[in-house]
Amino acid sequence: MSLLTETIAAITPQDTVFRARARERLEQLTMPFWALGRLMDLAEDLAGITRSLRPPIARKTIVTMAGDHGVTVEGVSKFPQEVTAQMVHNFVNGGAGINALARQVGAEVVVVDMGVAIDLSELVSQGKIMSRRVAPGTGNMALGPAMTREQAVNSLEAGIEVVQKLSVSTDVFGTGEMGIGNTTPSSAVVAVLSGASVETVTGAGTGIDEEQRNHKVAVIKRALAVNQPSRQDGLDVLAKVGGFEIGGIAGLILGAAALKKPVVVDGFISTAGALIAHALCPLAADYMISAHRSMERGHVAALEILGKKPLIDLDLRLGEGTGAALAMNFLEAAVRVLTEVATFEEAAVSEANS
Amino acid sequence: MSLLTETIAAITPQDTVFRARARERLEQLTMPFWALGRLMDLAEDLAGITRSLRPPIARKTIVTMAGDHGVTVEGVSKFPQEVTAQMVHNFVNGGAGINALARQVGAEVVVVDMGVAIDLSELVSQGKIMSRRVAPGTGNMALGPAMTREQAVNSLEAGIEVVQKLSVSTDVFGTGEMGIGNTTPSSAVVAVLSGASVETVTGAGTGIDEEQRNHKVAVIKRALAVNQPSRQDGLDVLAKVGGFEIGGIAGLILGAAALKKPVVVDGFISTAGALIAHALCPLAADYMISAHRSMERGHVAALEILGKKPLIDLDLRLGEGTGAALAMNFLEAAVRVLTEVATFEEAAVSEANS
Repeated sequence: MSLLTETIAAITPQDTVFRARARERLEQLTMPFWALGRLMDLAEDLAGITRSLRPPIARKTIVTMAGDHGVTVEGVSKFPQEVTAQMVHNFVNGGAGINALARQVGAEVVVVDMGVAIDLSELVSQGKIMSRRVAPGTGNMALGPAMTREQAVNSLEAGIEVVQKLSVSTDVFGTGEMGIGNTTPSSAVVAVLSGASVETVTGAGTGIDEEQRNHKVAVIKRALAVNQPSRQDGLDVLAKVGGFEIGGIAGLILGAAALKKPVVVDGFISTAGALIAHALCPLAADYMISAHRSMERGHVAALEILGKKPLIDLDLRLGEGTGAALAMNFLEAAVRVLTEVATFEEAAVSEANS
Repeated sequence: MSLLTETIAAITPQDTVFRARARERLEQLTMPFWALGRLMDLAEDLAGITRSLRPPIARKTIVTMAGDHGVTVEGVSKFPQEVTAQMVHNFVNGGAGINALARQVGAEVVVVDMGVAIDLSELVSQGKIMSRRVAPGTGNMALGPAMTREQAVNSLEAGIEVVQKLSVSTDVFGTGEMGIGNTTPSSAVVAVLSGASVETVTGAGTGIDEEQRNHKVAVIKRALAVNQPSRQDGLDVLAKVGGFEIGGIAGLILGAAALKKPVVVDGFISTAGALIAHALCPLAADYMISAHRSMERGHVAALEILGKKPLIDLDLRLGEGTGAALAMNFLEAAVRVLTEVATFEEAAVSEANS
């Protein structure tokens, strides 16, 4: 049995007994019924995911997957492709948005080269990034498949292996990515798996104008027409219109779910990865926590498929894992509510009139 | 000159030079333009408030103001009045929601007795709470004014004195409150100062049903008819249909603004306090940061007057300062973005095509 098949087979739903026990305690806390709202929903989820009334979440790792995209030659991004590798150096030097926000919440940032066009072997040999390089960038999906089916499996299994390796020192994972042009394959993935029109799920990415966005829509439509990805086959969608970092994120999510660890899904590109994971194994959604509502207009359609409501809505559109890092503050808060707040009985506080 | 007059006179707008300098740096960070959205708006605000490009926010204090309300005899709450004092004991023992969430963000909780009906002098003499007790609960506003104009000034000046005392060890304040029945005066304050109908700004409080809410609306309408508070006079509104903890919060906000320190305004009741502060001194709004969108239906109307958009929207309706504590995570994140993220030049990353 392959690592991918084995991982998917190991995924079971959240535990209903621990959910119920957490809920029972939350309902008795010294406050009006469920007065901390979605923080309490989150606490219930964390109990169901981790099978614990003291869900462990202290050790946090954001995995930032980097990859390049052949489709950038079509002019879909404001930034040149070299920025993917430059930003990997920025991550390693601690100067990027994700570094600042991961420090705030006490999370480690692990950067994985899933397929950056520029050689990063020096950083790998220095132990500063992990390499699970599938190829130096995907093919141009406007002309043919972004990758082979075998490469798609490789990218998924790379994500699973990364999460297995990191899980010895990680309680909760966050997804992140860097890849110039990667809102383009993400919109393609969301269009196929949601059935929504390309227009409605294609946004401004790093900040292109409306004319450039129309061009991006046309490129994605061409990619879908050329490749004809099958909505019923997540692997086919990933291979034909995905990306290596998107596959890596999908694998990371499947791996975390198999290990019964929560995984905080960042923004639009990460959610495209989550959709691939969900297409391969719908139960994986039980382990996903949606971090934030991205400015990218396809995000809502993607989250609806997963049945997720994001925790944060601050007009973020950076990626890297920044939303996931921010959202981890709420995981900490949710666990504290579950474990530290007294019940009416413990605190001798009068309950509400029925 | 009275402390109140003096404090109001000391309030000046945010500093435009520091805002501009912060903005200039934020625009050069290694990310697409303003890609961390409202976190960057917040960083700009904090620079303008504190007159610093490294806004100090490490030392956080949530001030939880407690007070009782004569109007509870009208049956406006699900909980008995004794719960106000019981919850003060719960705060002191560290078992309430605010204790858990303040610990998560490293904030101190300071409880102030602004006018609780039950005697709390033992906790005061033990140094566990501060006492700025105006009276043992307000009068029943459905029959006459909640307090005298002098008591209203006392409650405001108490808030100012509390903030002045705590400011030696506080960089950023959060507001909080406890007072059974206090959504009733808060809805009254919001109705008067927004001009909205009582129906649209009166919610379920701790969880009353629709029939009880209709009764609450009728009680508030009676209070407004009996007292005729003047929309042009914030002090009159506070005296006639406010509360001691609401006045305390208003004073705390004015005091923080005069000291050029940010104050994170919690939910609905805190925002009623913020409206009083704004009515007395519109410039005070420059120092307010809205923490979260409360489930209370009058909150949006109140925030519109202040021109504020809340940072968090998690269906919270607890008060105590819980939303303010949670939001402080975002203040930390915003300052880290401003101070720790590299610029394109510093990191040698290629900029976007123009």
